Amino acid sequence: MPGQVTVLKEITQANSTLADALRTDFARQRVLVLDVIASPGAGKTTLLERTIELLRDDLRIAVIEGDPATSLDAERVAAAGVPAVQINTGGGCHLEARMVQSALGQFDAANLDVIVIENVGNLLCPTGWDLGEDAKIVVASLPEGDDKPLKYPMSFVSAHAVVINKIDLEPYIPAKVAKLRANALAINPDVTVFEVSCTSGQGLDAWVQWIRERVAQKRAG
Amino acid sequence: MPGQVTVLKEITQANSTLADALRTDFARQRVLVLDVIASPGAGKTTLLERTIELLRDDLRIAVIEGDPATSLDAERVAAAGVPAVQINTGGGCHLEARMVQSALGQFDAANLDVIVIENVGNLLCPTGWDLGEDAKIVVASLPEGDDKPLKYPMSFVSAHAVVINKIDLEPYIPAKVAKLRANALAINPDVTVFEVSCTSGQGLDAWVQWIRERVAQKRAG
Repeated sequence: MPGQVTVLKEITQANSTLADALRTDFARQRVLVLDVIASPGAGKTTLLERTIELLRDDLRIAVIEGDPATSLDAERVAAAGVPAVQINTGGGCHLEARMVQSALGQFDAANLDVIVIENVGNLLCPTGWDLGEDAKIVVASLPEGDDKPLKYPMSFVSAHAVVINKIDLEPYIPAKVAKLRANALAINPDVTVFEVSCTSGQGLDAWVQWIRERVAQKRAG
Repeated sequence: MPGQVTVLKEITQANSTLADALRTDFARQRVLVLDVIASPGAGKTTLLERTIELLRDDLRIAVIEGDPATSLDAERVAAAGVPAVQINTGGGCHLEARMVQSALGQFDAANLDVIVIENVGNLLCPTGWDLGEDAKIVVASLPEGDDKPLKYPMSFVSAHAVVINKIDLEPYIPAKVAKLRANALAINPDVTVFEVSCTSGQGLDAWVQWIRERVAQKRAG
């Protein structure tokens, strides 16, 4: 329907303009911004909790949590010891730059090293909305199946890193870590793939090292 | 943004009008129509495969598969021995009544007992789009966590049945079946909850019995 397309284009253009302005701010403030995208229940918040535990002594981190309802996730992240702002979209299926801008009022971004934005649990809609981030991270939960990059290619195409989570469950399910990795790389040959278990801690060192290196690059400007 | 709201309202109203027309057709044809909604990888297609195996000798079933990309799901369902049509939304986050209408051209609905529509893997967007179905089914995968009904209430509020899948993984994960059931009922006290494992087959008898009863009601008019 042409009317819908026109209006949607106006909205996404306004979003892109604001996201560019945020990106300029983040560059000046030398704060690394990550947009974490995944299906509901892929383990985004648990990955954040583990990541914060491993980095909070060295890096100043803040989190913006997007959810359709509840402040459960922001409470969990705040309990891990970093500032967290919850955005409730009221059913909305993705975060937009204006929501991030509004949440930023709660932080002094110039005194942060990393802002992690946990997007709404949705492997489709968040992909098209620039939030001014440096990198999009897709968390792919192994129990969801190893075919997800093929069936939901958009988020994998735009990802800078894919974190395969819940690898400790591999013995109990049909999905295979190696196949999920291969399918992610088939869709996006340049993506960096991590294999982790937030339960056992396996693989988290490589993931947080990647963040440390990105922070160092951002500081170097 | 008011422009967006107006245009979106026109589109959803056109969708509802068409969905009502489809519902009238389905009532005349006495075919039960189920709209299956879940996150990516919750096990919708596997549940369909098991359901077809248990019902195909007694009931005439057809499936409409919605996915952003690939025809992997329709191929799986067709291999289970029933007619299947794949709709690729090209990244679109939900099915709409016009897509279902178009897919119906592939079937003789008057000679079917059940049409199952497997919606795009997304716990948010499909909720607001009437497809003319008799019942919405939410498949909730236990490894996604037992808090999903609280964080994504919309799909649970509108569901007629919730199928808790992958219950065989309970020993290996923090999520609990009883808590997921309680959270689903807290959001929607009238919903029927099934607890199944498509791997072991546990709980599937009660689920297919529910479908049989719905088919009998639909035949009775």
